[in-house]
Amino acid sequence: MNLLETINDPADLRKLPRQQLAPLADELRNFLLDSVSKTGGHLSSNLGTVELTVALHYVFNTPHDRIVWDVGHQTYTHKILTGRREQFPTLRQLDGISGFPRRVESEYDTFGTAHSSTSISAALGMALAAKIKGEQRHAIAVIGDGSMTAGMAFEALNNAGVEEDVNLLVILNDNDMSISPPVGALNRYLARLMSGQFYAAAKNVGKSVLPGPVLELAKKLEEHAKGMVVPATMFEEFGFNYIGPIDGHDLDSLIPTLQNIRNLKGPQFLHVVTKKGQGYKLAEAEPILYHGTGKFNPAEGIKPAPPSKQTYTEVFGNWLCDMAAADERLVAITPAMREGSGMVRYHAEYPDRYFDVGIAEQHSVTLAGGMACEGVKPVVAIYSTFLQRAYDQLIHDVALQNLDVTFALDRAGLVGADGATHAGNYDLAFLRCIPNMVVMAASDENECRQMLTTAYRYPGPAAVRYPRGAGIGATVAPALTTIELGKGEIRRQGERVAILAFGSMVAPALKAGGQLNATVANMRFVKPLDVDLVKQLAASHDYLVTVEEGCVMGGAGAAVAEALAAAGIAKPLQILGLPDKFIDHGDPAKLLASVGLDGDGIAASIKARFLGGEPRLVVNNG
Amino acid sequence: MNLLETINDPADLRKLPRQQLAPLADELRNFLLDSVSKTGGHLSSNLGTVELTVALHYVFNTPHDRIVWDVGHQTYTHKILTGRREQFPTLRQLDGISGFPRRVESEYDTFGTAHSSTSISAALGMALAAKIKGEQRHAIAVIGDGSMTAGMAFEALNNAGVEEDVNLLVILNDNDMSISPPVGALNRYLARLMSGQFYAAAKNVGKSVLPGPVLELAKKLEEHAKGMVVPATMFEEFGFNYIGPIDGHDLDSLIPTLQNIRNLKGPQFLHVVTKKGQGYKLAEAEPILYHGTGKFNPAEGIKPAPPSKQTYTEVFGNWLCDMAAADERLVAITPAMREGSGMVRYHAEYPDRYFDVGIAEQHSVTLAGGMACEGVKPVVAIYSTFLQRAYDQLIHDVALQNLDVTFALDRAGLVGADGATHAGNYDLAFLRCIPNMVVMAASDENECRQMLTTAYRYPGPAAVRYPRGAGIGATVAPALTTIELGKGEIRRQGERVAILAFGSMVAPALKAGGQLNATVANMRFVKPLDVDLVKQLAASHDYLVTVEEGCVMGGAGAAVAEALAAAGIAKPLQILGLPDKFIDHGDPAKLLASVGLDGDGIAASIKARFLGGEPRLVVNNG
Repeated sequence: MNLLETINDPADLRKLPRQQLAPLADELRNFLLDSVSKTGGHLSSNLGTVELTVALHYVFNTPHDRIVWDVGHQTYTHKILTGRREQFPTLRQLDGISGFPRRVESEYDTFGTAHSSTSISAALGMALAAKIKGEQRHAIAVIGDGSMTAGMAFEALNNAGVEEDVNLLVILNDNDMSISPPVGALNRYLARLMSGQFYAAAKNVGKSVLPGPVLELAKKLEEHAKGMVVPATMFEEFGFNYIGPIDGHDLDSLIPTLQNIRNLKGPQFLHVVTKKGQGYKLAEAEPILYHGTGKFNPAEGIKPAPPSKQTYTEVFGNWLCDMAAADERLVAITPAMREGSGMVRYHAEYPDRYFDVGIAEQHSVTLAGGMACEGVKPVVAIYSTFLQRAYDQLIHDVALQNLDVTFALDRAGLVGADGATHAGNYDLAFLRCIPNMVVMAASDENECRQMLTTAYRYPGPAAVRYPRGAGIGATVAPALTTIELGKGEIRRQGERVAILAFGSMVAPALKAGGQLNATVANMRFVKPLDVDLVKQLAASHDYLVTVEEGCVMGGAGAAVAEALAAAGIAKPLQILGLPDKFIDHGDPAKLLASVGLDGDGIAASIKARFLGGEPRLVVNNG
Repeated sequence: MNLLETINDPADLRKLPRQQLAPLADELRNFLLDSVSKTGGHLSSNLGTVELTVALHYVFNTPHDRIVWDVGHQTYTHKILTGRREQFPTLRQLDGISGFPRRVESEYDTFGTAHSSTSISAALGMALAAKIKGEQRHAIAVIGDGSMTAGMAFEALNNAGVEEDVNLLVILNDNDMSISPPVGALNRYLARLMSGQFYAAAKNVGKSVLPGPVLELAKKLEEHAKGMVVPATMFEEFGFNYIGPIDGHDLDSLIPTLQNIRNLKGPQFLHVVTKKGQGYKLAEAEPILYHGTGKFNPAEGIKPAPPSKQTYTEVFGNWLCDMAAADERLVAITPAMREGSGMVRYHAEYPDRYFDVGIAEQHSVTLAGGMACEGVKPVVAIYSTFLQRAYDQLIHDVALQNLDVTFALDRAGLVGADGATHAGNYDLAFLRCIPNMVVMAASDENECRQMLTTAYRYPGPAAVRYPRGAGIGATVAPALTTIELGKGEIRRQGERVAILAFGSMVAPALKAGGQLNATVANMRFVKPLDVDLVKQLAASHDYLVTVEEGCVMGGAGAAVAEALAAAGIAKPLQILGLPDKFIDHGDPAKLLASVGLDGDGIAASIKARFLGGEPRLVVNNG
């Protein structure tokens, strides 16, 4: 680590002679492997971008020049080189550094990312702002081939390609991968571009720096010599100057190419080819396995984990296979999240009814709508946070037409190490306001399966949300049974206080209910809300408390408040849930405790509000 | 109208001899002009698609074959030919036929559309469903060149291009127009494709129906003859068989081409060139003016309207120019809605600070985020309903980073003739749950201007919503003044009942307040809510009533309910707003009255609930 220890910011890097960059890259790779194997984190993508990151900070004048990293899970080298090397033991932990770029963390993190395909838009915005302000700076978007399949990347290319005088560089980091294996026409196209691979690089860079008239002449000569027109790439059709593909692990290609590009005007597109996991044989062989890792021994690699509690993701994956066996109308759609959504077995067993549409959430939902029109029954498996990408499609293409689509919303609530960008905190609020929707929140693994069956058999749009990771360890009954639409259940009979709990909060509410001898209801449905149960609990208790792992504003507790108002019931009500702020990364249990959503926290809130003797603060003129 | 009267469904059409189709198209064009000039509606786009619609229903076996019309405002000929000719006097009126395709209206309307760029996804879904079910049918998406700029169209192309055995036909209706003039690289590319225009059609169709080996031979011969490779179009790179461009007003091109395509397997892409307004000289000359019209005399054309009350759109447009003059950091972004958002003058006066990004809502918001990082101050002008398209970008790229972006949300609440697809009913619910957001609702024109100034000067993300059309006629003061953040105002002092009104509901609430001698507050802010005012009104009144032109679920009334709960106030509360259903097209005032949101309706609701003697239904054990 001799070289690496001398680099505390990119200015230090830029002082190194060129020939020291390759040894530095080796040190970085060792550092990454050592560090990630101790903390867990993203490995394959970071091993794949070591040289590219070194070259960018070496050639460009960061932070004056802006680099926007798409998705941003490949920024560990960037963080190491920009003064955060010593913080790596805290990676993705409470109060530690984030696994993604964050503007609050460093001036080198020019734009916070984590959801894919935002980088070209953001970098173009920076480039246009520089133009307006008359500032000379480069804006660079580094985007993977997987991220290029999302529509907003195309929207940005379409817009940027006609801006002839912006200093915008889009670097396509082509590693033939999103998290899941690549799909779609664009990827096939990129593979064709790469078939003539590295040879083209020098030529294109040369061409690009020739003055106009000479360039024209050279082009004509070249055409004459070959007797054909070289077909323009799709990116040139969009108005970019296309350069590449070049080898993204070869600093002797990267650095001169970037140095040349630095002098070009207008939108530039550099196609760089890298390998996920580069330099660590085990990750090169299994990049998906090493995409996001826990702790492991680098010498041995990731070992099969001992059997642990079933995750909700597994509950969904098993349900999907069982329901597909029971009903041949079932089709399943994923926007590039086969592994994360638990669909590997389903894909193997039902390949004809499996649709990975790429990172394309908008399309995934409207595709499901089109299918539902024809009487097949689509299940869209999507993380809560990514459904935000398809909100209009959910409203306009599915709910408005009352189409029969099931939404399986994984990662609802706080997600832990991935932090605020991936938290599924808003789904209850943004779904329940939409007419025709049914919205359920699973309180345990078995109920999750029942709710999925219920949603599937309901002949309209229905969503089931469930948290990341394992549940409480409930036994999952193999039958495909439903629960009654819009009906909750009383799980504990107590007195004075009734806790109306939703989904993952039923378990801690039961703990709190035990401490306080409160009644606890598992409400099950956020929409349609069990209004009869709300009225019954209101009539038989002094105080009502709602608890949800979601934003308080507009969420399930607000639904209860609305129901009470509509029923003409004026009753002391406490709404517990996630506060109105973005919550950073960290251990999920600790995070929940920090906002009072564990059993003790719920009990403490209720005591402080209602049970410190007489109710505090309650004013009732009604 | 001799021919047209004999056509009551496409089966009748298919009985006509080919030579009668051109006279039928003439009759259709006359019918359209006559009918739309009487009812108002979309004209230019419908005049542009007469022949294409005739040809599609003539060649394909509708409704067995599925046609999905992107956006769908060009479907009048489709509706006339599918049994709805006699209903045209009711177009876009309460209980009349919709201006867009609707599944509930006809089996020929296979998919409801209105927001752009959904058709390829939906049609692909139908094609895949047919494949799974073993049904032989064609699925056809008809999409304009403007709609092709939205990312989800690319997501769908990317997915469809690798499905080699689906009966999917994408027809690009290229009229060089969205509503505003075209922008972006794709449009420039399409213009290049058209430069060699119509000649290519026959050749491509011929080529496509040749058997494989013969095709290969023909290709080689052709290459040899020309000494060059014909560059593939972008659509061929995506895996589609590209045919065209052909003249979309020439039935002798359209019909044989479609007949040939009908026999081809796999994804087909037909490039059709049409002219908006075709056949009506005035509309051909000014397609934007005739895009959506009121009533007019066809012989005279649309006359300049007499000066009428200022619309909120005009208030925004004037504010934008004034604020741009006052602050050179201001930049304005529109996703292809220059006219609808009132930005024509701004564009003319500040072309360097005007960004029309095409139909690309996602990109528009993240672009604004990137700009805000660099210290310019973006204003994103977007309809409430279209912000649904950029929800994740608002959360992840703007709000999470607390970036200084102003959102001007036009068409908030019910929109009238465009109906449920365009209603801006959900913004209060889906915006207020997002941390860092400031959300305001304008009660009159002058306050709208003040709120825009307030949002602009607030150094984080802030949205101002205002309704379609004219306001109450308030005089707009020229100064650029702000209002205090999070503060409402009492507009009428009464007793017993306090009406907490938001935005457009302040005026009818004042009317109801007068009838009931109730207090009326203009709450102004949905977030941050004026909690002090809520508490003060609760303490001094027996009953609280909230009123908003937005969904009750999770909206501003729910915010008041949450605030009361948090303050420990148990008080009879009535939440008035839009019911939990999609509301059809019709006259906005009548629609509002139908859901009880005019002055009389609000008064009646309050009387029924609270003032019919003693409060009904109120149970209070607290």
